[in-house]
Amino acid sequence: MGATKYVYDFSEGNASMKPLLGGKGANLAEMTRIGIPVPQGFIVTTQACVYYSANGAYPEGMEQEINDHLKALEKLTGKTLGDPKNPLLLSIRSGAVFSMPGMMDTVLNLGLNDETVAGLAAATGNKRFAYDSYRRFISMFGDVVMGVDPQAFEEELWAKRDEVGAKVDTDLTADDLEDLCDRLKGVLKAGAGESFPNDPMKQLHLAIVAVFKSWDNHRAKVYRRTQGIPDDLGTAVNVQSMVFGNKGETSGTGVAFTRDPSTGENAFYGEFLMNAQGEDVVAGVRVPRPLPEMEQVQPENLKKLYEIRETLEKHYRDMQDLEFTIEDEKLYMLQTRNGKRTAPAAFKMAVDMVAEGLISKDEGLMRIDPAQLDQLLHPRLDPKQELNVLAKGLGASPGAGVGTAVFDADEAEELGSKGRPVILIRWETNPDDIHGLMHSQGVITSHGGMTSHAAVVARGMGKPCIAGVQDMKVDDKAKTATIGAVVIKEGDWVSMDGATGRVFLGQAKLVPAGEDENMSAVLGWADEVRRLRVRTNADTPEDARVARTFGAEGIGLCRTEHMFMQQERLPHVQAMIMSDTTEEREKHLARLLPFQREDFDGIFRAMEGLPVTIRLLDPPLHEFLPSYVDTMLELQRLQLTGASAAEIAKQEALAAKVKSLAEANPMLGTRGCRLGIQWPEIYAMQVRAIIEAAADVMASTGKMPHVEIMIPLVGFEQELKLMRQLTIDTAEQVLAERKVKIDYTIGTMIEVPRAAVTADQIANQADFFSFGTNDLTQMTLAFSRDDAEGKFLTHYLSTDLLKANPFEKLDQQGVGQLIAMAVQKGRSVKPNLKTGICGEHGGEPTSVKFCHRTGLNYVSCSPYRVPLARLAAAQAVLEEKAADKKAGD
Amino acid sequence: MGATKYVYDFSEGNASMKPLLGGKGANLAEMTRIGIPVPQGFIVTTQACVYYSANGAYPEGMEQEINDHLKALEKLTGKTLGDPKNPLLLSIRSGAVFSMPGMMDTVLNLGLNDETVAGLAAATGNKRFAYDSYRRFISMFGDVVMGVDPQAFEEELWAKRDEVGAKVDTDLTADDLEDLCDRLKGVLKAGAGESFPNDPMKQLHLAIVAVFKSWDNHRAKVYRRTQGIPDDLGTAVNVQSMVFGNKGETSGTGVAFTRDPSTGENAFYGEFLMNAQGEDVVAGVRVPRPLPEMEQVQPENLKKLYEIRETLEKHYRDMQDLEFTIEDEKLYMLQTRNGKRTAPAAFKMAVDMVAEGLISKDEGLMRIDPAQLDQLLHPRLDPKQELNVLAKGLGASPGAGVGTAVFDADEAEELGSKGRPVILIRWETNPDDIHGLMHSQGVITSHGGMTSHAAVVARGMGKPCIAGVQDMKVDDKAKTATIGAVVIKEGDWVSMDGATGRVFLGQAKLVPAGEDENMSAVLGWADEVRRLRVRTNADTPEDARVARTFGAEGIGLCRTEHMFMQQERLPHVQAMIMSDTTEEREKHLARLLPFQREDFDGIFRAMEGLPVTIRLLDPPLHEFLPSYVDTMLELQRLQLTGASAAEIAKQEALAAKVKSLAEANPMLGTRGCRLGIQWPEIYAMQVRAIIEAAADVMASTGKMPHVEIMIPLVGFEQELKLMRQLTIDTAEQVLAERKVKIDYTIGTMIEVPRAAVTADQIANQADFFSFGTNDLTQMTLAFSRDDAEGKFLTHYLSTDLLKANPFEKLDQQGVGQLIAMAVQKGRSVKPNLKTGICGEHGGEPTSVKFCHRTGLNYVSCSPYRVPLARLAAAQAVLEEKAADKKAGD
Repeated sequence: MGATKYVYDFSEGNASMKPLLGGKGANLAEMTRIGIPVPQGFIVTTQACVYYSANGAYPEGMEQEINDHLKALEKLTGKTLGDPKNPLLLSIRSGAVFSMPGMMDTVLNLGLNDETVAGLAAATGNKRFAYDSYRRFISMFGDVVMGVDPQAFEEELWAKRDEVGAKVDTDLTADDLEDLCDRLKGVLKAGAGESFPNDPMKQLHLAIVAVFKSWDNHRAKVYRRTQGIPDDLGTAVNVQSMVFGNKGETSGTGVAFTRDPSTGENAFYGEFLMNAQGEDVVAGVRVPRPLPEMEQVQPENLKKLYEIRETLEKHYRDMQDLEFTIEDEKLYMLQTRNGKRTAPAAFKMAVDMVAEGLISKDEGLMRIDPAQLDQLLHPRLDPKQELNVLAKGLGASPGAGVGTAVFDADEAEELGSKGRPVILIRWETNPDDIHGLMHSQGVITSHGGMTSHAAVVARGMGKPCIAGVQDMKVDDKAKTATIGAVVIKEGDWVSMDGATGRVFLGQAKLVPAGEDENMSAVLGWADEVRRLRVRTNADTPEDARVARTFGAEGIGLCRTEHMFMQQERLPHVQAMIMSDTTEEREKHLARLLPFQREDFDGIFRAMEGLPVTIRLLDPPLHEFLPSYVDTMLELQRLQLTGASAAEIAKQEALAAKVKSLAEANPMLGTRGCRLGIQWPEIYAMQVRAIIEAAADVMASTGKMPHVEIMIPLVGFEQELKLMRQLTIDTAEQVLAERKVKIDYTIGTMIEVPRAAVTADQIANQADFFSFGTNDLTQMTLAFSRDDAEGKFLTHYLSTDLLKANPFEKLDQQGVGQLIAMAVQKGRSVKPNLKTGICGEHGGEPTSVKFCHRTGLNYVSCSPYRVPLARLAAAQAVLEEKAADKKAGD
Repeated sequence: MGATKYVYDFSEGNASMKPLLGGKGANLAEMTRIGIPVPQGFIVTTQACVYYSANGAYPEGMEQEINDHLKALEKLTGKTLGDPKNPLLLSIRSGAVFSMPGMMDTVLNLGLNDETVAGLAAATGNKRFAYDSYRRFISMFGDVVMGVDPQAFEEELWAKRDEVGAKVDTDLTADDLEDLCDRLKGVLKAGAGESFPNDPMKQLHLAIVAVFKSWDNHRAKVYRRTQGIPDDLGTAVNVQSMVFGNKGETSGTGVAFTRDPSTGENAFYGEFLMNAQGEDVVAGVRVPRPLPEMEQVQPENLKKLYEIRETLEKHYRDMQDLEFTIEDEKLYMLQTRNGKRTAPAAFKMAVDMVAEGLISKDEGLMRIDPAQLDQLLHPRLDPKQELNVLAKGLGASPGAGVGTAVFDADEAEELGSKGRPVILIRWETNPDDIHGLMHSQGVITSHGGMTSHAAVVARGMGKPCIAGVQDMKVDDKAKTATIGAVVIKEGDWVSMDGATGRVFLGQAKLVPAGEDENMSAVLGWADEVRRLRVRTNADTPEDARVARTFGAEGIGLCRTEHMFMQQERLPHVQAMIMSDTTEEREKHLARLLPFQREDFDGIFRAMEGLPVTIRLLDPPLHEFLPSYVDTMLELQRLQLTGASAAEIAKQEALAAKVKSLAEANPMLGTRGCRLGIQWPEIYAMQVRAIIEAAADVMASTGKMPHVEIMIPLVGFEQELKLMRQLTIDTAEQVLAERKVKIDYTIGTMIEVPRAAVTADQIANQADFFSFGTNDLTQMTLAFSRDDAEGKFLTHYLSTDLLKANPFEKLDQQGVGQLIAMAVQKGRSVKPNLKTGICGEHGGEPTSVKFCHRTGLNYVSCSPYRVPLARLAAAQAVLEEKAADKKAGD
């Protein structure tokens, strides 16, 4: 067995080698392969990084491999690393398998030292350029490799500018920069405790190790967790000969998207800056110019860019995100990758590319991240309200945001994680702000452009972003943002429209969004492909109607407890609970009957014969009474403040009832079918209301409602047997009274672990199983959601003990095993048992795909998640096909 | 396929046909087969009862079958049913597969009517006897078959006695009884709404149906539930020719045990009454005479009884419970069955019979019901206290009882089920009192003997019983018992010693029991046979010592939270909880360290190198603070009563902390390893205390403690991985400080369903699994024990929805499946993974046997249950062997 190869020339690789070479490296190799101009170099593999992470050292022989590839590169470029006459300069960039923009480290201009900088000046005839490159290198190396606070270098630069009266960096002369380089080396030594390394080979290896290490930095870990990227992949390191966009006015740099990433329009979309390095564009330090303006300075290169755009889109069959640099009028491509896009853009591109014949419908379906759909369906600013525009910036990521102003990422996380809506306002953002962005409703920056950090990350997260609000002065020490005479202070309400770039003061009203035609087209394809049915959770006719507009094919969960909570009903509910006898309870239940019947009537009409699963009363009865502590406090207050004996006696009676119903662990107490078993009259009333409503609706519309009655919290077959009999007895009595026939089925929630484990017994009594994954998760994990979130669960997530919140993403290894077991056992008894899921997971893509793989019949989710579930369900089919094909190969 | 045979003559059956013929019938057949004198008859099978229960009618052809067998019986006896000259009279008795004494119905003297009674009088020349039989038959038939309140017949009898001035029943003349018969028929017609049926065939079939129906009466169902007897077995019906013990002074009846059922002594033990029917002995209406006194009246029959005793014990190889009747000096055996016995008797008999060569040790082990062991180990009256004996009766069932007096079974159940100790005091008990007996600490009766209902049932339940306290007058209307000048009223404390028959006034002190030599011998055999190790749950050195005297082989669960609750420690615990910083917490933890170390030191010394599993802190921290409601009430009280600002501020601070820690469902909240993960300093302190104590004990005793550290409430591998590392880091630090080496292992509780489902992952981090079946039951069933018992669980048990309390008997179908899955998955990764159970189920026989079958290494239970677990573990091995043998046959 030969030694592992850890280093590849660009010419040795191709796009399929991503796992080994990383995304960036593989694409550089691929571009090289198809004749696109790329500055040459080599790639240290992800495996080398994994080895380094585990062992803290290079694999044996790799140093020599690097040296050999460097030699080859020197030969190819005709330059030599450290050559005082004509030095080879290198860029050292991370490149992971999955894109993690800005998360890991980069070092540019490597190879410069006091000798080579002079050589560079001589070779280019541009001393200012040489020292500008040098000072950038010292700062970046000091920050990334030596761990010095970058602010210290920035301050030294500003001090120098003040000293010589330079307004902007370009006002600094070559001599100013030469002096600055010395001073920056002083800053580096002071910060790092050791001197700047002059030896370029030493620089190279230190930089490679720094990139390896940056794989495990905090922000990269956080990012991977939010994106579900495994921690054990490692990053490749791209060592590439430098080209300079900052060599003078015939040089420049830019970024572009082959289509508009915001709208999806099929138009070349990009920005450039002359005499600048790439970081200047991305970081938003200078405001870049739109691509078409390049016509004015380098029309030939613009034409070449158009050709490359065409070539790359055809080659990759997807919208590309490009980086380029022009050095002395010569164009080089530095990167290509599939571009991030907003949800509307994703739909438009998919529809257009299918129409163009570039991709198939199945590919079009796979191009859309279902999670992105969420943003499209998120509420928009109500167009009917009067809103005063406070300021305008670039509409960098669409969507509406309303929240209180915060000026710091930690604060944003602090408040946002507690469910408080915040808008993050920054001069610009950087990768250290990622946790704040995650917890904000949106982000507004005074600097930066459409491709700035804030814009790219916000689009990725589906959050609204307004970038480059130039009229806004942000003071993050004072925590204010000033726009003319208006000062936004921390805690002030701010609203934003990320599509138009408008910022508003105050708390704007939001309205639900609808589908656009591209989304409808793609969801139409999804409906043709998917096998899973998609239902909605809806408790009201209004919810039911909204969900149907999103394509819901039925109601998977209609909760009846919210109906009990309404103002005009609660007194009857409370009187029923306070009753001492069955007769008394029945009297109060009789008063509730018409209300319940009316609820179901509306829902059956809205669903027009689609299936409606109604869950009988589930929560413990004490939820309908005042809390125990409030009741006791009121009693003590009456006693201590000399209330009348009658008042005290009344409160004592209430307190006694509340106490008798109080529970140590209500989640595991008298709820669900345990109510119906102890007080059958409650469920009997509900069943009567359901069947009467169904009969009424059938009589008036001529269409039979599709009724499914669901018994909650069953753990034992006998429980369901009893409640099934009660339901049948009551329903048959109503049908006999009404002299009609209505079909109905009776099923159960599977939400108690025991029900999953004994599903072969429970299936004997059930026409369907609906997995209540919220409660099943609580019990299987022993996680009370009320007590976990904001407490230990938050701790677990923040320390990486858990990768995802199990209440958002189904815990497939734990809860999922129980679901799979229940499906298998249930169907061993009833092969056609209908199964579905009605927890919140029914609207989360990975969970929907799990449901498909596990063979469920349907998922049910909140109305706004229905489109997402339709898409995820289709993708599950396509992923299955792909896996089958692969297995067959 | 031929028609099913539903009726068998005694001569057609044998002892192995119990499932079909019931216990009594099969034994009557067996006695017939081996030549013991038995009044002949036939048996209607249990299958007929099952058919009747389901269909409400006889199976086709069965009526004819009965008639055919009746004809054969008439031929055999030379008597004919309904023959006015020489009538055949029948007894109709239930006979289930498992003995259910007194639970179902019996009809005697069937066949009597106004004509046959005269024939009986003529044939026997004893008119008084004939009418006495007739009046008994009318009453019994009215009660059992026609559903008339038996009290009504009893009152009529008393009225007649008063009328003629008869002190006892035997004072009534033949004419008195003839008149009484007419009056009883009037009572029957008034109560039942129809006349007494004169047709003996009608009587026969009505009685058979009544016995079938009695299978499903309430008390029978309750009894079956307590005994774990399935509801679908049905009862057989024994139709047997009557013999009369009440035919005059040459007739009699009696019951006997082939050995003493109370002590186990190898001595013939019985009671008889001349001129009486069997019910007179069992019901305790007349006080019977001890068997040896039969020498004085019928020495020949006594000799025959001794011979039969010998024959039957040899034949059945177990102590027999016999019923006999002498009719005109001719001896008949009416029943034989394996006799119930007290726990001490069971041990003595097993040891004696093995010594006698009657049975093998394995058989001896199987002869003892582990549940019975419980009574033997229950506390005894402290012999050191001065006790004044109030009265003395028969020591009918041993054991000490202390409780408040109750005079009615419902009241006993009411109080007893709430955990209040009660002593049930009755004139006599009957099967309707069974629920009251179940919930009492003991029972005292003023009537009846050693074989009375109260005595038999109490022995079966392992409860103390004193029968026949003749000096005591019980008035169950007034709810008093009067003994001389002393009146015991409801609610007065009473103490009793069921072994000596002594009754005391007041609340006596109890002390723990110990093993006797027979028990030790049997447990010695058990230890040779069993594979399961038996450990104990012990939190203190004292518990540990007690458990070792009972044979505990280690501690399976040492909880550390009780150590936190002790008075001198709680302030430090509370200060630790109130701390805002890690440093502050560590300061208070340092104060707790010496206490914890001392706790572990004592336990390690007590266990002398046996394994000790210590669970790190488990309960939520708010358990160590005042309750939320109390804190808020105190705050309001301070506010409303003008307390100082400082007092209020202090209480507000406490309230804020209590509120921040309050949980909606503490069972599923921040507890177990979630404490150690968020505040590692707590677990670090505990591990330090454990290892320091182990080092101290090793240094001073030279013997290395066997330390097992257990992490509670693990649901994810990563949780255990972190806590394992914390434990190792801390332990290694202590060992380095002390410069010693102590072996320790680290394992986890499996109590969260997810842990069971993902046991193959968790096993990677665990040296052992200990199933915490209390919590695993709570979570798997969604049964909060605090909220279930006394509420829905009590409802479920009382309505038969559940057969057993899952917190007492392991729910093998639900929780058991998770345990089996966890063992299998855990061992798939670590074939030698040590597994045990430490919930309360570790001391319940069926659960212990489940643990054996599932392949666990040990069970752990409370100290007093250790012997029970040793025995059950041995029986599990023997049952497995028997099953293997059967499967191999």
